[in-house]
Amino acid sequence: MESITCMGFKAAGVAAGVKKNGNKDLGLIFSEDPAAAAGVFTKNRVQAAPVLLSRERVRSGRCQAVIVNSGNANCCTGEQGLADARRMASLAAKELAVDEDMVLVASTGVIGQPLPMDAVESATPGLARAVRAEGFPDFAEAIMTTDTVPKLVSERSRVGGKDFTVVGMAKGSGMIRPDMATLLCFLCTDIVAEPDLLREALTESVDRSLNRITIDGDTSTNDTAILMANGRSGASITSPEERAAFQVALDTVLLTLARLLVKDGEGVTKLVDIIIKGAPSDSDARTIADTVAHSNLVKTALFGEDANWGRILAAAGRAGIDIDPNVVDMFFDDVKMVAEGTGLGEAAEAEATKVLKKPEFEITVDLGLGDGEASVITCDFSVDYVKINADYRS
Amino acid sequence: MESITCMGFKAAGVAAGVKKNGNKDLGLIFSEDPAAAAGVFTKNRVQAAPVLLSRERVRSGRCQAVIVNSGNANCCTGEQGLADARRMASLAAKELAVDEDMVLVASTGVIGQPLPMDAVESATPGLARAVRAEGFPDFAEAIMTTDTVPKLVSERSRVGGKDFTVVGMAKGSGMIRPDMATLLCFLCTDIVAEPDLLREALTESVDRSLNRITIDGDTSTNDTAILMANGRSGASITSPEERAAFQVALDTVLLTLARLLVKDGEGVTKLVDIIIKGAPSDSDARTIADTVAHSNLVKTALFGEDANWGRILAAAGRAGIDIDPNVVDMFFDDVKMVAEGTGLGEAAEAEATKVLKKPEFEITVDLGLGDGEASVITCDFSVDYVKINADYRS
Repeated sequence: MESITCMGFKAAGVAAGVKKNGNKDLGLIFSEDPAAAAGVFTKNRVQAAPVLLSRERVRSGRCQAVIVNSGNANCCTGEQGLADARRMASLAAKELAVDEDMVLVASTGVIGQPLPMDAVESATPGLARAVRAEGFPDFAEAIMTTDTVPKLVSERSRVGGKDFTVVGMAKGSGMIRPDMATLLCFLCTDIVAEPDLLREALTESVDRSLNRITIDGDTSTNDTAILMANGRSGASITSPEERAAFQVALDTVLLTLARLLVKDGEGVTKLVDIIIKGAPSDSDARTIADTVAHSNLVKTALFGEDANWGRILAAAGRAGIDIDPNVVDMFFDDVKMVAEGTGLGEAAEAEATKVLKKPEFEITVDLGLGDGEASVITCDFSVDYVKINADYRS
Repeated sequence: MESITCMGFKAAGVAAGVKKNGNKDLGLIFSEDPAAAAGVFTKNRVQAAPVLLSRERVRSGRCQAVIVNSGNANCCTGEQGLADARRMASLAAKELAVDEDMVLVASTGVIGQPLPMDAVESATPGLARAVRAEGFPDFAEAIMTTDTVPKLVSERSRVGGKDFTVVGMAKGSGMIRPDMATLLCFLCTDIVAEPDLLREALTESVDRSLNRITIDGDTSTNDTAILMANGRSGASITSPEERAAFQVALDTVLLTLARLLVKDGEGVTKLVDIIIKGAPSDSDARTIADTVAHSNLVKTALFGEDANWGRILAAAGRAGIDIDPNVVDMFFDDVKMVAEGTGLGEAAEAEATKVLKKPEFEITVDLGLGDGEASVITCDFSVDYVKINADYRS
């Protein structure tokens, strides 16, 4: 992995012993200066202790460090869980010599088991000593659960005559649907920005990226996305065009992470863009795209490389939107498979089957009713997904 | 299979060659007298030709025969599909010497391929000759697709001093969710009843049975339930108590069929009743029960015999109902696993794991908020489900 850095930020990841397999499981991001910050969190009514704590703390618009463990979600752990999340932050704060209100916390892993605080306590001093500018890859590794690869991307752009960087790290890879789908995602930038702008930019970007992906339709109790801006580059936003340039950089990082998350989804072999056109409205298109993207019958057909367009149409039909199957066209990439609700026969199917063998492709459904459009990124549903999730805790 | 009959009804099932594997694929039910009839059909906006035809014809409240093929859904087949469905009915009508408006049609199988009418045409005369009082098992076999066993049940009861019988046949076993979940279901009774009463009774029973099961969350384009009453027993409903007795008999048949459908669901190894109690309202309870029952993470954990109650709580939390995890209790059969949102530890988990090894059990979530209750019948989600559905058309 190339050396990705962001001015004024340091990071680290160590094996604290939260995970039984000895892999890295405790990560830390540290900004040398207090940073402006914004966060987006799960909409699930069951929320983990670190989500409750970080949601509250990030309201100040400021933070200087984030400590994250994998292997245990610290969720459904009652009062003790909240005390443990606070203690995690305070341990990091002490080692980094910052105010503990400036430290955010995130956790991911098994729900309903107490966080092994002994492990966290003994590892935190070493973790704090290990932070370094080139430490992002270690952090990205420390937040993994069933992910098979760490997800770390960066983007450079320019505002106010100065370069700035956005670095993003995320982990998947099950319990994902387009309702704040992140699981965990951490973004560092050295741009100069106030918390209000960060909040707005983060929400916009998440809507266009993390909220448009689905792996298995389940949302997590721990979903968290945090954006920190420490201003170190001196790059400052002074015009709508520069505001847009920052948004583009942030979008690029988040959309790349989103695609990486789906690609590394549990058991995933294919990434598929479901594009709905010609809907009565954008919102109708989104409802239909979501329904198709979540259909287990569609997803297993994708795994089987079966151009089973009938399942796609049947899923669209149960979305609750009034569609007319007799005017629907469907495409696999550029291959037209269905015209006015009727299959185009074996030659079209042979071409479509070639598309289905690709690791990434698009399915476009044109409903022929209006101008509404939406797209969702989904994946296939494989035997391995079931194996991974049947054996998860054993 | 025991010999199940219903006075004045005959049935048959033959291999017409619609299925490539040579199994039975064409079935016929014939009532010697014109029968009162009611039907319930899929709510999917994409509806197969036989659904469009039968929905229209059953409005008359009368029918005398139903012809059904498996192996091809006759869906997304355009005008030709409608002509084929009408032709199927008219072929049967001719052989049985009844008016063609008195014949209903149903189909199940692959979507988007033209019905092989040659096969249907040449097989129909033999099918009509084969009908006999003991022919229900052959019919039940002829409507199977990925089902591994035919589903045929009967119930006897008594009204007006006379016995009557309700016989039900159904097929599954994928594309099932609680939104008119039947796929195909045919009910014959020799009770005396008007169409209005049949419609009301069928709708009530379906709500309590077929609309409470889920296998994979997908609805079919072909879902059809038809109830025929030919009055042959002379058993006539003359009081609210007798009306209730008929409902109980019908409920029993449909609920038994519903459980058989889930048990024989694609790849299913476990049947699980998800019971939500203590919800703000019955409707909230139903929303939460549906969300838990459809969660792939819950269903794969059931397959893995993993008492992963955190996933159940997380699924309940994303149903959009305001719940408080800190007052939730959870039981696996009688084993209390969670008290006030917190797991009860290893001893409880060991007991719960024993429950999970059973082929049928209940999961009860008490939300501790109100008096709302609902239950849904679900199943686990196995490696075989994916295999069956990835390879379905090949």
